[in-house]
Amino acid sequence: MNFEVVFLGTSAAVPSATRAHAAIAIKYFNEIILFDCGEGTQRQLISSKTSYMKINHIFITHYHGDHFLGLPGLLQTMSLSDRTEPLTIYGPRGINDVLDAVIRICRTELSFEIIPREIKAGPVHVTDKFRIDAVKVDHSALTYGLVFEEVKKREFLREIAISLGVKPGPDFSRLHRGEEITVDGKTIRPDNVLGGEKKCKKVVYTSDTRPCQNIIDASKDAVLIHDSTYDGSMKDQAAEATHSTSIEAAEVAARGGAKKLFLIHISPRYSSTVELLKEAKTVFAATSVARDFQVYKP
Amino acid sequence: MNFEVVFLGTSAAVPSATRAHAAIAIKYFNEIILFDCGEGTQRQLISSKTSYMKINHIFITHYHGDHFLGLPGLLQTMSLSDRTEPLTIYGPRGINDVLDAVIRICRTELSFEIIPREIKAGPVHVTDKFRIDAVKVDHSALTYGLVFEEVKKREFLREIAISLGVKPGPDFSRLHRGEEITVDGKTIRPDNVLGGEKKCKKVVYTSDTRPCQNIIDASKDAVLIHDSTYDGSMKDQAAEATHSTSIEAAEVAARGGAKKLFLIHISPRYSSTVELLKEAKTVFAATSVARDFQVYKP
Repeated sequence: MNFEVVFLGTSAAVPSATRAHAAIAIKYFNEIILFDCGEGTQRQLISSKTSYMKINHIFITHYHGDHFLGLPGLLQTMSLSDRTEPLTIYGPRGINDVLDAVIRICRTELSFEIIPREIKAGPVHVTDKFRIDAVKVDHSALTYGLVFEEVKKREFLREIAISLGVKPGPDFSRLHRGEEITVDGKTIRPDNVLGGEKKCKKVVYTSDTRPCQNIIDASKDAVLIHDSTYDGSMKDQAAEATHSTSIEAAEVAARGGAKKLFLIHISPRYSSTVELLKEAKTVFAATSVARDFQVYKP
Repeated sequence: MNFEVVFLGTSAAVPSATRAHAAIAIKYFNEIILFDCGEGTQRQLISSKTSYMKINHIFITHYHGDHFLGLPGLLQTMSLSDRTEPLTIYGPRGINDVLDAVIRICRTELSFEIIPREIKAGPVHVTDKFRIDAVKVDHSALTYGLVFEEVKKREFLREIAISLGVKPGPDFSRLHRGEEITVDGKTIRPDNVLGGEKKCKKVVYTSDTRPCQNIIDASKDAVLIHDSTYDGSMKDQAAEATHSTSIEAAEVAARGGAKKLFLIHISPRYSSTVELLKEAKTVFAATSVARDFQVYKP
């Protein structure tokens, strides 16, 4: 496993027998990152054999209950499992107040530190392997969509490096990271051995939103995971509730040039999603309706 | 359906793929009463086709997260479904503080009133059809077991009533309720037409506890639903954690003269409960390990 998206909960505000409240795990090499944490997320993690102890970063997109009420129970279970690693929890303005309420309802001292971080538009969490950016979306509460993107890496021209006298091993990594090295008194610069940029994988999670330009702008070549609470005939209800229809989600994917679209936040009124999918596919062929426990490799 | 016990969650503090956190629905004629409300209870209710809108009384046995963290989400979903009926929530000392925390984390105004009621040992909720009494049990937090019992009714001697000139209909009900009536100027008293007490059904829910005398005293002829977090070989761990083993639960059922025993609060370490059940049955034959979604008619 290098990169997996695990759909833990794909329901709208009221869950169903087959769909739990919002949560997505991004597994990237040894890291597991959680996007939203609706009620029942700890059990969805256990059922999908996704280790909750490996989660060091949780992003809450907004403070409607179906997106964060799984936090108290998940934190308690981490604590019962004697976690000591700090946990960073990101959320829009008000994160300290929300985490105060979460910790208050836990009624117990946790075994680990929680680090609150406020989400604003722009880069939120940047590592040398990937970055997570937030984009403001259009929902009744202040809500951020999340863009997970691999750091762009240039292709390593192995044969040229060897021809310049560089030995495979740590020096390869240094050059690939952008550091100069010296071989037999001769300076080798990264530009000498790096070619064009490799294609990088990108996942965009809209959370709850109306169709919006920020998501269109972020979706080029991405796996787009988009709010699709209603079917196409319920456009007015979707606008009223600041959600999207399946057709609107597909239009965003098409206009943004997404690679693939997953529909989520499915209202419990749809016991079958056949029609929802069919109408979205007329606009954007590479559409799927996400299922709880579905694993996708971008 | 006149009387059903629906096991909604039968796990210990950490849930498993097959067992959710603590919750039991008591369906009695048109009423649905909830004993505990662990995380995920709203979804367990939906999956078991038990109407959350019909719940007017919720009893929280103690304030460990696995017994009440389903409250915020359940209240929000009731509110999303436009509930207006008030909801009474019972809990031990501190219920106001707990409900403040629950309402604070909801971050929204609910569409209905919540009536907090403090549980003390003794009668908690008494109607003309059934009563619920609380008994203090032995756990690390202040915890009450709950005894649901039908109101004792005397047998109605129909043929004697008719021979005294009473016509079948409302007069039968009045006499059965204990009211005198007059037929052709002649007074008929309940004692004239009522025989011995009918056998009444009783369900005892221990919640989390060590084996304790109060439960033994309450269990005569009851369906006993008893903490069984550990197997018989883990007696010391059970004592340390103030829980019970399957054998201890069976001993309580035997000593109390229970009619039937259900083991609950099963640790996720037991992916199979065959051994747990086998050893309990050596002490008390009428034992079952409760499963999520199991329905029992007392």
